[in-house]
Amino acid sequence: MRIALLGGTGDIGEGLTLRLAHDTDHEIVIGSRDPEKARSKAQEYTTHIEARGSETKITGFENGMAADRADIIILAVPAYHIADTIETLEESLTADDILISPATGMKRDEDGFHYHQPSAGSVTKIAAEAAPDGVAVVGAFHNLAAGRLSDLDAVLGIDTLVVGDDESAKSTVCSLAEDIEGLRALDAGGIANAAEIESLTPLLINVGMNNSGLSDLGVRFD
Amino acid sequence: MRIALLGGTGDIGEGLTLRLAHDTDHEIVIGSRDPEKARSKAQEYTTHIEARGSETKITGFENGMAADRADIIILAVPAYHIADTIETLEESLTADDILISPATGMKRDEDGFHYHQPSAGSVTKIAAEAAPDGVAVVGAFHNLAAGRLSDLDAVLGIDTLVVGDDESAKSTVCSLAEDIEGLRALDAGGIANAAEIESLTPLLINVGMNNSGLSDLGVRFD
Repeated sequence: MRIALLGGTGDIGEGLTLRLAHDTDHEIVIGSRDPEKARSKAQEYTTHIEARGSETKITGFENGMAADRADIIILAVPAYHIADTIETLEESLTADDILISPATGMKRDEDGFHYHQPSAGSVTKIAAEAAPDGVAVVGAFHNLAAGRLSDLDAVLGIDTLVVGDDESAKSTVCSLAEDIEGLRALDAGGIANAAEIESLTPLLINVGMNNSGLSDLGVRFD
Repeated sequence: MRIALLGGTGDIGEGLTLRLAHDTDHEIVIGSRDPEKARSKAQEYTTHIEARGSETKITGFENGMAADRADIIILAVPAYHIADTIETLEESLTADDILISPATGMKRDEDGFHYHQPSAGSVTKIAAEAAPDGVAVVGAFHNLAAGRLSDLDAVLGIDTLVVGDDESAKSTVCSLAEDIEGLRALDAGGIANAAEIESLTPLLINVGMNNSGLSDLGVRFD
């Protein structure tokens, strides 16, 4: 399959790109508002993967063109850009495309990070409301530490929680997630259940901040 | 130490009582609004522990008397009873007593369970607001499955997240939690960080409901 990573030049986009490019045979397309930056990052990621002796094919395009080329589009953009980004993709998306929403809303105060719940209920729900008819939205990859993903020597051994109202799309995303070595996908139900998953991201940061020796944390359900 | 479990006749109270009684030397006092029920459950738990060849001392009293006898009071009561329960304890609590709040607010709809955030911010915060001056409130034991705790043959290997604004009390509760075999206590910061921990409880239930073979789930941060 072809996977587009919009915001693929950012931290979490980089981590997911490197893992998918290294561990799977999927073709990866980096999307950015700036096509030159997308191409440059695609080249950088390709060099990084090839230096490890793996083959890969990573290209870079402006967001809309990246989405146009892909079957699955990962929205690795900040939560407050989710709806806008999806709107710019209207002509690039076709029925059966799948949008993946990994973003969460957070605010920080002196105690730590907190979930900043959107009035829609969750960021994943915002994505679902913005998506054109026929395009499924699946929430996944919310609780992965960017640094740990990007370090291909780091063992994962963690879970990602997947929510969606389209069972077939959700199943496709679970398979994609499990193509990443050491990542287990767990079904957490419908998009109505996304808020509790998005809340886990600030919690992971708080736990990392308050316990020495724990950083770039993931979570395992057992 | 003496540990009181108010609501110790309920599911999570039973699980914590059995683990603490079995794995530690602490004296356990079961509290209930009905002292006869507390005594009867205390006897039942004692018999259960002794049948496994361990010694224990579990007694049962009305909530106020149970709290009066204890240094640490675990509020294993439903979220909507937290404030009322603490108010009834006013004459039983002394400075240096520690209240532990393990409760969370949840609502259920057709998609699953959801965190029902109190206007105070969290159930732990409600407990902190209701507690008399000088009595520290610590949030802990929110995300433990009652059935798994109660089954003393079940290996835990999971974490509990601990929040509190009194560092000394938090440290005492972390030690108490780690006296339970297979339970690791992680510091998640101040009480302002409790909501994300309480949110994890409905998420664990949703994941258990949507994945065959996973039930009585706990979580491990790694």
